[in-house]
Amino acid sequence: MSSMWGNFIKLSIFGESHSAAIGVVIDALPAGKALDLEKIAAFMARRAPNKGKASTKRNEKDQFEIVSGFFEGHTTGTPLCAIIRNTDTKSQDYDQLKALMRPGHADYTGLMRYGGANDHRGGGHFSGRLTAPLCFAGAVAMQILAPCGVHVGGHIGCIGDVYDAPLDPVAVDGSQLDALVNATPPVIDPGAYEKMMALVDNCRMQQDSIGGMVECAAVGVPAGLGSPMFGGLENVISSLMFAVPAVKGIAFGEGFGVCNLKGSQNNDAFFIENGKIQTKTNHHGGILGGISSGMPITLQVALKPTPSIAQKQQTVNVQTNQNAELEIVGRHDACIVPRAVPCVESVLALAILDQMIGGQKL
Amino acid sequence: MSSMWGNFIKLSIFGESHSAAIGVVIDALPAGKALDLEKIAAFMARRAPNKGKASTKRNEKDQFEIVSGFFEGHTTGTPLCAIIRNTDTKSQDYDQLKALMRPGHADYTGLMRYGGANDHRGGGHFSGRLTAPLCFAGAVAMQILAPCGVHVGGHIGCIGDVYDAPLDPVAVDGSQLDALVNATPPVIDPGAYEKMMALVDNCRMQQDSIGGMVECAAVGVPAGLGSPMFGGLENVISSLMFAVPAVKGIAFGEGFGVCNLKGSQNNDAFFIENGKIQTKTNHHGGILGGISSGMPITLQVALKPTPSIAQKQQTVNVQTNQNAELEIVGRHDACIVPRAVPCVESVLALAILDQMIGGQKL
Amino acid sequence: MSSMWGNFIKLSIFGESHSAAIGVVIDALPAGKALDLEKIAAFMARRAPNKGKASTKRNEKDQFEIVSGFFEGHTTGTPLCAIIRNTDTKSQDYDQLKALMRPGHADYTGLMRYGGANDHRGGGHFSGRLTAPLCFAGAVAMQILAPCGVHVGGHIGCIGDVYDAPLDPVAVDGSQLDALVNATPPVIDPGAYEKMMALVDNCRMQQDSIGGMVECAAVGVPAGLGSPMFGGLENVISSLMFAVPAVKGIAFGEGFGVCNLKGSQNNDAFFIENGKIQTKTNHHGGILGGISSGMPITLQVALKPTPSIAQKQQTVNVQTNQNAELEIVGRHDACIVPRAVPCVESVLALAILDQMIGGQKL
Amino acid sequence: MSSMWGNFIKLSIFGESHSAAIGVVIDALPAGKALDLEKIAAFMARRAPNKGKASTKRNEKDQFEIVSGFFEGHTTGTPLCAIIRNTDTKSQDYDQLKALMRPGHADYTGLMRYGGANDHRGGGHFSGRLTAPLCFAGAVAMQILAPCGVHVGGHIGCIGDVYDAPLDPVAVDGSQLDALVNATPPVIDPGAYEKMMALVDNCRMQQDSIGGMVECAAVGVPAGLGSPMFGGLENVISSLMFAVPAVKGIAFGEGFGVCNLKGSQNNDAFFIENGKIQTKTNHHGGILGGISSGMPITLQVALKPTPSIAQKQQTVNVQTNQNAELEIVGRHDACIVPRAVPCVESVLALAILDQMIGGQKL
Repeated sequence: MSSMWGNFIKLSIFGESHSAAIGVVIDALPAGKALDLEKIAAFMARRAPNKGKASTKRNEKDQFEIVSGFFEGHTTGTPLCAIIRNTDTKSQDYDQLKALMRPGHADYTGLMRYGGANDHRGGGHFSGRLTAPLCFAGAVAMQILAPCGVHVGGHIGCIGDVYDAPLDPVAVDGSQLDALVNATPPVIDPGAYEKMMALVDNCRMQQDSIGGMVECAAVGVPAGLGSPMFGGLENVISSLMFAVPAVKGIAFGEGFGVCNLKGSQNNDAFFIENGKIQTKTNHHGGILGGISSGMPITLQVALKPTPSIAQKQQTVNVQTNQNAELEIVGRHDACIVPRAVPCVESVLALAILDQMIGGQKL
Repeated sequence: MSSMWGNFIKLSIFGESHSAAIGVVIDALPAGKALDLEKIAAFMARRAPNKGKASTKRNEKDQFEIVSGFFEGHTTGTPLCAIIRNTDTKSQDYDQLKALMRPGHADYTGLMRYGGANDHRGGGHFSGRLTAPLCFAGAVAMQILAPCGVHVGGHIGCIGDVYDAPLDPVAVDGSQLDALVNATPPVIDPGAYEKMMALVDNCRMQQDSIGGMVECAAVGVPAGLGSPMFGGLENVISSLMFAVPAVKGIAFGEGFGVCNLKGSQNNDAFFIENGKIQTKTNHHGGILGGISSGMPITLQVALKPTPSIAQKQQTVNVQTNQNAELEIVGRHDACIVPRAVPCVESVLALAILDQMIGGQKL
Repeated sequence: MSSMWGNFIKLSIFGESHSAAIGVVIDALPAGKALDLEKIAAFMARRAPNKGKASTKRNEKDQFEIVSGFFEGHTTGTPLCAIIRNTDTKSQDYDQLKALMRPGHADYTGLMRYGGANDHRGGGHFSGRLTAPLCFAGAVAMQILAPCGVHVGGHIGCIGDVYDAPLDPVAVDGSQLDALVNATPPVIDPGAYEKMMALVDNCRMQQDSIGGMVECAAVGVPAGLGSPMFGGLENVISSLMFAVPAVKGIAFGEGFGVCNLKGSQNNDAFFIENGKIQTKTNHHGGILGGISSGMPITLQVALKPTPSIAQKQQTVNVQTNQNAELEIVGRHDACIVPRAVPCVESVLALAILDQMIGGQKL
Repeated sequence: MSSMWGNFIKLSIFGESHSAAIGVVIDALPAGKALDLEKIAAFMARRAPNKGKASTKRNEKDQFEIVSGFFEGHTTGTPLCAIIRNTDTKSQDYDQLKALMRPGHADYTGLMRYGGANDHRGGGHFSGRLTAPLCFAGAVAMQILAPCGVHVGGHIGCIGDVYDAPLDPVAVDGSQLDALVNATPPVIDPGAYEKMMALVDNCRMQQDSIGGMVECAAVGVPAGLGSPMFGGLENVISSLMFAVPAVKGIAFGEGFGVCNLKGSQNNDAFFIENGKIQTKTNHHGGILGGISSGMPITLQVALKPTPSIAQKQQTVNVQTNQNAELEIVGRHDACIVPRAVPCVESVLALAILDQMIGGQKL
């Protein structure tokens, strides 16, 4: 419901783009887990702006303060709360947005939902900035999962029609995923990234933006995690994934490619080797019947182009109830995809942590 | 969690393919809503097998009995429970499946999840048959929504590489959706359906199966429904959608197409006409920031090919822990997509009903 | 929400007093647990009517049919659903109740809640009969807990001012609780029971009814179960207990007696013996800070007198909106307390099972 | 689960007695509700220590900062988060508590639950200090309810064997409850309060503490709120109430008094006057079948004596695994009951707000 989520752990994310602070409470975390705060900060820095050509100029440090649930270097098991102060906010940038609904943004739907009471500045609670506490939580989840052998990592699948080399759904392993998490930029093929950035530059010069895809994987997830029906891993992951602004689609394993596959192509043959049951291929993306097979979990997420573009746009003035034109000023990403990678990783890590606890594997 | 779902209404689905019965409890339904049981039966018949060339020969009538929550033709507001007896079950068909894990099925993951205690016959609780109570619930939801002007309908988007004509995301209306729900088969272009069935026939003759896509829409959803973050319409819908077996991906509006769109292309310009705010295009699929815009809600769902194919397949015998070969006998769909249409409609209707209640629009 | 409950297991109870059937779905039960159906039936028989002088003459056998989630003598881990057909229903007994609100019953509040759409016959979903599926679920829980050394049992604490001998909160053990569960009637002091029944007889002859108290305990619960704040054992147990009709109060350990105790009296001193930490006394009822201490969990539940009495009563006719008189006919318990004992035991067992799973002790 | 609660609104309470801060997130609040921050502070001051003879000397100002969800004087509808910094903390007071388990406290059960990882200082997350954010949330709820005509207020029912005059369960009205909320001390009979304080003084001089009872009521709650079974008002209220440390029992209306009442005494006769249906008496405490009747909701809560007493106590040293003696130093309440009054009011207000939203009355 609203900004809380979870089954066996629970998240509560709060804050607006221009409120005093944003943050997250993580409830029901396992106790006694060591957390490396510098590593959390490094992970969060991947999401923060000023990451180069694709990114907004807003100078947010995303400096978090843990105010509870952390004692002598470890989780206490009681609610872990971290807050991030909002500092570099220029609210006047947004004054016209009380009247003019930005196309592709939640200004109009938020107005309909909250009757005008919600904080419109910078998108308020709808702001992409709210992914900062999500990434904090994701970094915590990844640090708890790693000692259990579970590793999560992602990369820019594509920007526009420029594709990175894909992850191998069978051969991908923890060290490759860890390397991706530490990589700047998060790509497998650096040459592809250059072409991506050329495309983004081109879009920015045209006062435009561009969409893309993030591919993400988890390895080391034990077989038997998840549930049939509504408690499936795909249900759990996707119920969390659409909290990342701009996400419009999610697909697992072969994804939408299955629409044009035959059963004989898509079925993954089982085999046993050294006592371990695996599949030869991994079209199923590590999930069958909602439950993990022990093979790598793989997914793709579709991200729409940043709706904030500098071009003049047609819209409605809700104060005069008349058609109007809008020119968005301010600091915006021409492509959100690079910064979305840690968000997608966070979602996958949190969902797996949740299910690892539920499955009594942690 | 597991086989319960919901926020403002709650579903509990129970049963196995070969247990005494399957069924559903719908909790927290609004009271005093008239239900037309024949119309429910007609809706469920769309999901039932023996629907022609694409379908299994199993003779299930899906006859439901409402055992509670329905009095003098109306919902009581207390839990509505319907059960469907399992009758045409041939359990011996499945004896080999205790040992031989069917590729693409949940036999192996179910074994890992339940330690061998789950009912393996016909897939047990993982069976596609469990979509019968889902469709019952969906039919109830649609009957409650229709008097509020909300209509839900879908069609076969594609089977393999054969596409139906797409829904127009702006012009689609209630009468077109109602017509689709009543159509046999559920397509816009009958010519496309013939080609689809030719493809399915061809697959069956090759002892194979084929995947596809369902496109679904809802119109009449008031603007302002849903929530940001985890309570978004996309989160709610997808948390339910992956309960439909074979679903591997979901996308809203422009879907994965957004990856290669520019902001100037994907943004939907607002305009006001006769006092009503709308968008000229509908790439956003009726949802912005997790909240409905009042435009048609549109989504696509990717369905993998039926994993039960008659070809010999490689697998593992979990009793001997050796590699093995498997030949699946029995009655199976060569393409599940036509029967999946009412399932997808049911999911969308249930999610909208849930949010209509939460948003106090009902 | 409404008729669903749970954290780590989930219950969904459905049915009305005069609907086709009542029943329960138990979701997320552990897989592979053996269930003895005859023992379940015996447990449920303790709740069923015709148990002697205190009870209604309605002849309900409470015969259950498990329709899912049970295979080859064991739980499958997928939803366990049991239904109980309603057979001995005389709906005409209740015709006047559409107009005349019975004092102490939920006729009026149900009317306000459901706008007249709920099934009024026999109290509908509010009927005490709905404790039959609760007791089914409780019996299942007790059978899963017993092999882990957790035993639950209760007795009639008092009827009116006639008290049974109390449970010793320190010395009570599994064999005493098992004996109580098997005892007919469920009392420690048979002499007290005779006096109770004399009091009940006297009330019935005066066309009246009488309230009472159930005391219940659980032993073998490992220390460390539960959570602080809202996830405490007391919160969990009480959130379920008030589902038993007629319950108006619940108290743990010393209960309301703490109001007049000093800290030096109420504090339970810890000591260690043979490596096991215990408390010398057990005023805390086995729960401190919402978490089990390993000492017996003890609680008392206050049950109001059956509101259905044969005396003429003042009420309102909601069809004429006038004051009116009411004479209730039909079959009713003069004292519900004896039949409430297995209901209270069921609640305690279900809450502990839920928390055992959440605490990964099962 | 753990420190989150809710159905239609959600609470997430975080913090430890000696962590950087404590606080609360309230999710899914209605948007556009005016909040008077000074009034919230005044309400919270009733809970804060230094309230006279019964209270600890710890100097906590409970100064809250709203960091999100509040804009231009109104709730935004997105998560409202308030934090309260911990300042006057003397952690060294608690060093011995790593080894010596305080009787009546959650030291031992917390150790068993969290394996020694939880913050032991001052009781950590178990501390009564965590009721400060609860009272913040309660004050918010009361301010949202008041314009709807719903008023909540309570008083010290008793301390030890000294009773305040009781609330009249039929005649109590909003102005009486508002007066109680503003009263210092929260009693009906000031003479009784003097005797209470004499008793408390006496206990303190004996290095002891004393328990008591809080009585609380709500008026103006519309008939028809709540649900049967697990969603009943009593279930909802009690699931929240046991989050208040020291609460060991809760009872509604006549409470445990029903054990010795006859049906003819306990049944509340309905009557209609000026078109309004009411009951002549109110033994049912405004709730029948889990649903509000429109009569005042009344409840009593039993609070155990403060376990922190200065007397020498027997306990166990968990580091040496030996029996030991303990002398608690530091600042503690000799009687927690006066400070518990706003906590109980907060719980009742939050539960009603939750159900008002669920019942679409707000």
